[in-house]
Amino acid sequence: MTDSNTRKKLKVVTIGGGSSYTPEIVEGFILRHSKLPITELWLVDVEGGREKLEIVGQLAKRMVEKAGIKCTVHLSFDRKEALKDADFVTTQIRVGMLDARIRDERIPLKHGLLGQETNGLGGFAKALRTIPVILDICRDMERLCPNAWLINFSNPAGIVTEAVLKHSKIKTIGLCNVPIGMNKMVAEILGREEKDFLFPMVGMNHFIYGTNVWVDGEDKLQEVLNNLEYDAASKPVNIQDIPWQTEQIRHLGVIPCFYHQYYYSTSDVLEKQLHDYESNGTRAETVKAVEAELFELYKDKELTVKPKQLEQRGGAHYSDAACNLISAIYNNSHELMTVNVRNNGTIRNIPDNSAIEATCVVGTYGAIPLNFPELPPTVSGLVALMKSFEQMTVEAAVTGNYGAALQALTLNPLVPSGKVAKALLDEILEVNKDYLPQFFK
Amino acid sequence: MTDSNTRKKLKVVTIGGGSSYTPEIVEGFILRHSKLPITELWLVDVEGGREKLEIVGQLAKRMVEKAGIKCTVHLSFDRKEALKDADFVTTQIRVGMLDARIRDERIPLKHGLLGQETNGLGGFAKALRTIPVILDICRDMERLCPNAWLINFSNPAGIVTEAVLKHSKIKTIGLCNVPIGMNKMVAEILGREEKDFLFPMVGMNHFIYGTNVWVDGEDKLQEVLNNLEYDAASKPVNIQDIPWQTEQIRHLGVIPCFYHQYYYSTSDVLEKQLHDYESNGTRAETVKAVEAELFELYKDKELTVKPKQLEQRGGAHYSDAACNLISAIYNNSHELMTVNVRNNGTIRNIPDNSAIEATCVVGTYGAIPLNFPELPPTVSGLVALMKSFEQMTVEAAVTGNYGAALQALTLNPLVPSGKVAKALLDEILEVNKDYLPQFFK
Amino acid sequence: MTDSNTRKKLKVVTIGGGSSYTPEIVEGFILRHSKLPITELWLVDVEGGREKLEIVGQLAKRMVEKAGIKCTVHLSFDRKEALKDADFVTTQIRVGMLDARIRDERIPLKHGLLGQETNGLGGFAKALRTIPVILDICRDMERLCPNAWLINFSNPAGIVTEAVLKHSKIKTIGLCNVPIGMNKMVAEILGREEKDFLFPMVGMNHFIYGTNVWVDGEDKLQEVLNNLEYDAASKPVNIQDIPWQTEQIRHLGVIPCFYHQYYYSTSDVLEKQLHDYESNGTRAETVKAVEAELFELYKDKELTVKPKQLEQRGGAHYSDAACNLISAIYNNSHELMTVNVRNNGTIRNIPDNSAIEATCVVGTYGAIPLNFPELPPTVSGLVALMKSFEQMTVEAAVTGNYGAALQALTLNPLVPSGKVAKALLDEILEVNKDYLPQFFK
Amino acid sequence: MTDSNTRKKLKVVTIGGGSSYTPEIVEGFILRHSKLPITELWLVDVEGGREKLEIVGQLAKRMVEKAGIKCTVHLSFDRKEALKDADFVTTQIRVGMLDARIRDERIPLKHGLLGQETNGLGGFAKALRTIPVILDICRDMERLCPNAWLINFSNPAGIVTEAVLKHSKIKTIGLCNVPIGMNKMVAEILGREEKDFLFPMVGMNHFIYGTNVWVDGEDKLQEVLNNLEYDAASKPVNIQDIPWQTEQIRHLGVIPCFYHQYYYSTSDVLEKQLHDYESNGTRAETVKAVEAELFELYKDKELTVKPKQLEQRGGAHYSDAACNLISAIYNNSHELMTVNVRNNGTIRNIPDNSAIEATCVVGTYGAIPLNFPELPPTVSGLVALMKSFEQMTVEAAVTGNYGAALQALTLNPLVPSGKVAKALLDEILEVNKDYLPQFFK
Repeated sequence: MTDSNTRKKLKVVTIGGGSSYTPEIVEGFILRHSKLPITELWLVDVEGGREKLEIVGQLAKRMVEKAGIKCTVHLSFDRKEALKDADFVTTQIRVGMLDARIRDERIPLKHGLLGQETNGLGGFAKALRTIPVILDICRDMERLCPNAWLINFSNPAGIVTEAVLKHSKIKTIGLCNVPIGMNKMVAEILGREEKDFLFPMVGMNHFIYGTNVWVDGEDKLQEVLNNLEYDAASKPVNIQDIPWQTEQIRHLGVIPCFYHQYYYSTSDVLEKQLHDYESNGTRAETVKAVEAELFELYKDKELTVKPKQLEQRGGAHYSDAACNLISAIYNNSHELMTVNVRNNGTIRNIPDNSAIEATCVVGTYGAIPLNFPELPPTVSGLVALMKSFEQMTVEAAVTGNYGAALQALTLNPLVPSGKVAKALLDEILEVNKDYLPQFFK
Repeated sequence: MTDSNTRKKLKVVTIGGGSSYTPEIVEGFILRHSKLPITELWLVDVEGGREKLEIVGQLAKRMVEKAGIKCTVHLSFDRKEALKDADFVTTQIRVGMLDARIRDERIPLKHGLLGQETNGLGGFAKALRTIPVILDICRDMERLCPNAWLINFSNPAGIVTEAVLKHSKIKTIGLCNVPIGMNKMVAEILGREEKDFLFPMVGMNHFIYGTNVWVDGEDKLQEVLNNLEYDAASKPVNIQDIPWQTEQIRHLGVIPCFYHQYYYSTSDVLEKQLHDYESNGTRAETVKAVEAELFELYKDKELTVKPKQLEQRGGAHYSDAACNLISAIYNNSHELMTVNVRNNGTIRNIPDNSAIEATCVVGTYGAIPLNFPELPPTVSGLVALMKSFEQMTVEAAVTGNYGAALQALTLNPLVPSGKVAKALLDEILEVNKDYLPQFFK
Repeated sequence: MTDSNTRKKLKVVTIGGGSSYTPEIVEGFILRHSKLPITELWLVDVEGGREKLEIVGQLAKRMVEKAGIKCTVHLSFDRKEALKDADFVTTQIRVGMLDARIRDERIPLKHGLLGQETNGLGGFAKALRTIPVILDICRDMERLCPNAWLINFSNPAGIVTEAVLKHSKIKTIGLCNVPIGMNKMVAEILGREEKDFLFPMVGMNHFIYGTNVWVDGEDKLQEVLNNLEYDAASKPVNIQDIPWQTEQIRHLGVIPCFYHQYYYSTSDVLEKQLHDYESNGTRAETVKAVEAELFELYKDKELTVKPKQLEQRGGAHYSDAACNLISAIYNNSHELMTVNVRNNGTIRNIPDNSAIEATCVVGTYGAIPLNFPELPPTVSGLVALMKSFEQMTVEAAVTGNYGAALQALTLNPLVPSGKVAKALLDEILEVNKDYLPQFFK
Repeated sequence: MTDSNTRKKLKVVTIGGGSSYTPEIVEGFILRHSKLPITELWLVDVEGGREKLEIVGQLAKRMVEKAGIKCTVHLSFDRKEALKDADFVTTQIRVGMLDARIRDERIPLKHGLLGQETNGLGGFAKALRTIPVILDICRDMERLCPNAWLINFSNPAGIVTEAVLKHSKIKTIGLCNVPIGMNKMVAEILGREEKDFLFPMVGMNHFIYGTNVWVDGEDKLQEVLNNLEYDAASKPVNIQDIPWQTEQIRHLGVIPCFYHQYYYSTSDVLEKQLHDYESNGTRAETVKAVEAELFELYKDKELTVKPKQLEQRGGAHYSDAACNLISAIYNNSHELMTVNVRNNGTIRNIPDNSAIEATCVVGTYGAIPLNFPELPPTVSGLVALMKSFEQMTVEAAVTGNYGAALQALTLNPLVPSGKVAKALLDEILEVNKDYLPQFFK
């Protein structure tokens, strides 16, 4: 993979290529072409997404042509054709489209509960829909490109990674933009550049903690904790501006991520979400409107670069993260990145075969986590609980076992157990029936 | 401790001796006198409990006299005098009396939350009040009877045991009647006698699971799980008659205890508790009325045995458990009992120095847990979370650190984090001010 | 298994029934008949042992008849016939007879090395010969008596137990008399009866340590260590009278077993063994002569009880241990016994699926180890090393892999690695060729 | 430490500055001056080494002057003066000089035993002498330069690192050249450049294993193992040319280091060592002669660069390793290096607070190990045993406890336990009496 003279071909396949995000990843590949000389980029989507793929695919072709790099862009609705001999496969699929996400958020809010789209109830529903499709892709890869890397950024990225690690031999890394945002936040608080410090992070996707803030040989963790920003510029747009409980946060011993507000300020986030929902509907509905506008822009045949408006779509840094990761693997650069991989003892009180998100060294071998100190009692139990929820969710998604699914919701700290959990589960299964054949055999 | 010829003295001190339960433990000692020849029984209480101790103490003296055993009953308000050269010290204290418990239950219900008196919000408040007093008793014991055993059954028994294990050298075992009730329930479900099976249990106090049901060389765990009773005769009276979520329970892989209904049927228990509260007030208020009646009975100078009515008070089997435990230690009998001790690797994903409740072998060495299989993912994370809550509660109780206390409530799955948790904490600290000097220094 | 009224049959099968030890186990069953009402005792042997089985079998029949108990003794050379519907199967086989043991001891002594028959070079050779036969027995049991217990006392008992645990579903417990001897030694040193103390032991077979000496609530471990006897009456006759290195032993923090002299006084034992070998030949040759005499005695048709001379044969307490173990399982008595079972986290730095020897609670469920403190650094590494040797030996015995076999000897601290280890291995394989088909495929 | 504009001073102190190796480290600092702008280099030695320090110190001054860099070289016999406000302290001390090493090697050979100078008997003696002196240096550093890094390359580097980690707050990293040699060997076997692969290593100093050989996304470990060279160009000169036992090595599952020949080919190395000893005396004596020649060269006032002859002295790459390590810390470069640090769960079956040697990421935070797969059973037990030996050696060196010292030798697989171990220990203590005040109080 390293010797670019002998290796003529470098084939990347993007599944869910019709996504409005695609221009970002295309731009990322163009900017890195000297170090990451992709020769074929395949954008793949399902028939239901034909119109979108045609629009975004033509834009991608115009962008590549404008850049003048040696790379062919292929559009395809035949996943198998595309996967043949791929080197990297990226997945950014959304099973059930934004309409499914709207339902994911509405159901809990309707019951007066948090509509967290990743580790909460929404993420649970999304995992049930997404995991079978991702495992189907893995089955194809095992035959057509068994040595390719699967770089997944479909949410819930951690749970999806765990499913692939447990149920396929395909090499995989899961990706999220939250660690990038946290690094930026720490840089702001310290008033230092990112190259000047090391901020190792470990936990699970959307549930990650920074364990140290190494600056000039000292650990400034407590200083950062004492000045933690809940409204950092780098905070994802889907996270509410809700202050931390100062006394609790300062006693954590580790630095929480933006998504921890769901667990540490549950009552406050819920209050705000319900209020927003009454005023503006769900976040998913907003996103749907933004997307429609973006596709209108993309249709413009004069457009040959990524439009500025895309940056307001959220998901910033995702394609940077993906392109950097692929480049680090390709170039065996041993760079430090925070990604989703096999636990293997890194977090000691959860199983070895779990997926974790952790700061890793990246090269042709994939991503190897750093060694971490044991998590403090303030968070170790909560991490173990969330991992149990994730394990049960993977089991339910793969087997379609109703008991496992109910167990997952019973464990989830954002869902009250008992009749409420059961009612929510039944409603989720019912409205997602078309995407959950494993439960309706 | 074994040779009754050379050992003339066997001194037991019961702190909180003015409790309405005392006649039960006195009866227990009388019934076991041939195997456990106690020569001195000291009933100790604080000045504020003088009237009760006088009443119950006179009854105890009449009971012992009637039984005709060689044992002197001493009443004392001077703990130090009583502890001198004790062999066993039992603690059944209630700091703040039943009025504090009424507040413990009222505060959460007022906020529309569960008033769980042990591991929940009520138990949290009780731990903050009780731990400093128990540690004071330990300080006295370290000087006056350093080799004595402290047998604690003040709730929350697990958290109190952890505090003693971490902050004193005194040998201690924590005691609860729930395991006895669970054994009885399994016997009913199997239609077998208790001697015919082994039902090893492990977890934490009021949060314990049976891991196997060994009958005739087979493990009938799933069979018991499929027939689990939520309304067993052996269920504590303070636990609601609320059906389990069948599909979830059958998928657990271990057998939950009665108290797990708070975690597995949260919405249902809450609904019922709020309803009961509106109709009848708190459980604590009911108990207070029952107690008043009992003390009236105790005053009767003709009464020389434990009155039948005491059995309806709840807390059945507690004194049986205590007497059996003391006898097993004294006689080095290696009997199996389920008690609270140091974890020491028994549950692998919580710290070694934690308190756990587990089936143990009991003798002059105290209680040694059996080896247990690793807990399944359905429960291992929840156990780790609850242990984190307990660790933070002990830290808060010992240090009076506000951040630690808020952390504990933030972790507790029965309390919504954020402003609500903070408001609850502030109210708990305020109304318990007289018993929480560690927070008001 | 518990209700003797409804259970008419209790069938025990002893494989290797022609052993000179058999009268002991027969006597054991007779003495315990009221609690352990065996109805059928099958003594099984191979054709090559026909003469011995006939002699010892007739003695067994006379003993049972004399005792007047309701039990039929069957002699059989058809293992399958015998195993059908068995409740307990005991194995006391010696693959290759005493002649193989003579070679096991001679080969190392010839090279100037220790001839340890269990965990050393001799035990290694014996494991290679014995494991395939025991696994064949397990295959038969899986079909003919899948719920029966396999009670193995063929040496190396720990390694054989590990092979069965890893490669069969048959329930098994491995048995050794060393723990019984150690308990007796501690009783002598303390001047107390065994019922007065608890001496928990953990480690591996012939490599076990006592971790505490609980007497009257105190741990007298250091006191026992300071007075440790190397020539206790309870020491096995095959262990040399060699003093411990006092300073080293007192610094151990745990109590070694008799066999640890091979590891703690290597140079001294070797010197003595080589001297004895020159004077008297191997221990195995002595044993062979003793056995011949015993069989002469057994032929006497007037003999209806176990002859006194058998007690001098060594292996004392083995049949007591076996009978007590079977009785404890049958009667679900929860007695404490020190036997070989699955590790399952008991010793933390060796694999869960390893066999360990540990003090356990015994009942119809088999044997559950107690929880133990972490082993001190003085011994934890050596235990881990010996376990590695055992793991490699099991792998070699099951697969016939030469590399695994050479690895096992390379790891063994009693064998110098390099050319010497290879030469020894080649010689062992050669002289045992007839019993090692797995290596000569 | 990162901003070279604001940081005027960069002070390095080399203790044992009179060593013949010093010109190498001086050359290393000169070559890296643009990235590692050392302003003060203090060479410190004891009075007994005055002559050597004067000679080598003058050479160092001439080298620096010739190079024309801004750096002052100070010679000092006052450690405290030198340490004041140091940034980095390197230790290359040899307590007892080469004469002590000659004795370390002679004593075992005289008894017909291996004279391994690091983890064996020689290393044991060296640890007893060296640890008290290093801890004295730490005491000084704690007062005079508490934030400085201690970079130790005095052997046994792993054991010394463990002593500092356990008994001082000074930040330390231990250094060895073996990992550099192993990387070079793998490069040769693969026929690839070092930048093309990742060869993560873990274990202990002089007892380290490569766990994977990542090339182009594949693990070529078995391929390298099948072609392992015992006589690689990169092998240290003090290691014998002795072939591996091919079958055993191929079955290891990890790649051993050169020093493993002591453990895997014990009989062969011993034979060769004894032969060499008879012909040429000890390795230490050869080294002593080479050193005398070097100092003659150093005296030449015309000499202004490191003389070529030094390269034949052995210890190649040591100063490269040291300079690279200091530069990576100073520049926060996150480079991968294999050094000695706290275990912290990296190797799971040895204590967290142990020293290990492992591939780490290096920056201003020091060295953080990568996550490693669990060691296979072929080596995990031996690693645990060697760590026990190291733990006991540290305990003996710090406390002067005779029992701990005898325990260490009893555990060491290269020393036969019993009378021989005791005799060796007594002789080692006697001849090193002047350097072991802890044992002669």
